[in-house]
Amino acid sequence: MRILIIGGNGTIGRTVTSRLEEKHEVIIAGRTSGDVTVDIADLESVRRMFDSVGKLDAVVCIAGEAKWDHFDKLSEEDFYVGIKSKLMGQVNLVKVGKEFINPGGSITLTTGILADDPVEMTTSAAMVNGAIHSFVKAVVLELDNVRVNAVSAGVVEDAYEKYKDYFPGHNPVSMNKVVNGYIKSVEGKINGQVIRVIE
Amino acid sequence: MRILIIGGNGTIGRTVTSRLEEKHEVIIAGRTSGDVTVDIADLESVRRMFDSVGKLDAVVCIAGEAKWDHFDKLSEEDFYVGIKSKLMGQVNLVKVGKEFINPGGSITLTTGILADDPVEMTTSAAMVNGAIHSFVKAVVLELDNVRVNAVSAGVVEDAYEKYKDYFPGHNPVSMNKVVNGYIKSVEGKINGQVIRVIE
Repeated sequence: MRILIIGGNGTIGRTVTSRLEEKHEVIIAGRTSGDVTVDIADLESVRRMFDSVGKLDAVVCIAGEAKWDHFDKLSEEDFYVGIKSKLMGQVNLVKVGKEFINPGGSITLTTGILADDPVEMTTSAAMVNGAIHSFVKAVVLELDNVRVNAVSAGVVEDAYEKYKDYFPGHNPVSMNKVVNGYIKSVEGKINGQVIRVIE
Repeated sequence: MRILIIGGNGTIGRTVTSRLEEKHEVIIAGRTSGDVTVDIADLESVRRMFDSVGKLDAVVCIAGEAKWDHFDKLSEEDFYVGIKSKLMGQVNLVKVGKEFINPGGSITLTTGILADDPVEMTTSAAMVNGAIHSFVKAVVLELDNVRVNAVSAGVVEDAYEKYKDYFPGHNPVSMNKVVNGYIKSVEGKINGQVIRVIE
């Protein structure tokens, strides 16, 4: 397969990339590095990326940000960071990307455990993750020959030390299981699913 | 209780208003009619509404729109109709409204079955509903003495004839059960729940 990974240089992105590279041709997109650069919050940038990359069998997005802060401190503009990036950025990837996917190919988005099991300071992050979960279910009703799934993982073991104080009592998940979530979507046949990797 | 209903003049809003008026003082807010006018998509308008209304025991929002259309036809701007109104409009109601709620009082938002069980042309509507579901779970972790819930109903019987072609095989729900969802949030003690009224 010919696979585009957006955010392929992040912690999870690098590991997903290594796994996929064992069997596939992988093109990496990043905001400032990679084979091609993209700002997913900018629809024109997304269009330019796909135009330059051409036909694909799979797109994996492990990018998109949202602002973490106490609800009282999050301004309306702060909420729009996540809305423009992790939410509409991923919607735009499906919108433009579906035209570049070969039949039966897939687009895999990234959300996270906060949609179902939020912690303090995550009203914005939880919101955009939950939005993508419902979007995935809705969009597959209108797509032919392009599968769309989302991987929703808990805190990955590799990042647990850094984030554990924010996630009291959460069970970290192994990087291998998280990567398997992406493999399941890309190499399997599932469609319209939220792949929860939480234990 | 002193209760503010935003959207109290709509189909469901009118019935919720009648039920609540049996036992409570109800103030109705609407975009163009009611005791006070408000555009929930506009944070300043939300602030003016609460300033003019004063202290409350409950806020019920049965307002907020999102654009329905085929995914291919929905522009980025079309998605922002729902994001600004039904999503951030309701977030803003919690943000400002929590300061006006007496201890133990509640804010009840409205989503809908599309978050879990979408139909064609609802990528935008499903998305904003799913976003609010996760937002409700996250925001109650940071609020003291103010409860927040969302009512997520199926197609109400009263509107079923009009919408049935969009919802093949969906079971309409009685208006009485939908209204009970709001009563459960306002008069009960639940918090952080998505009250699904789907059968």
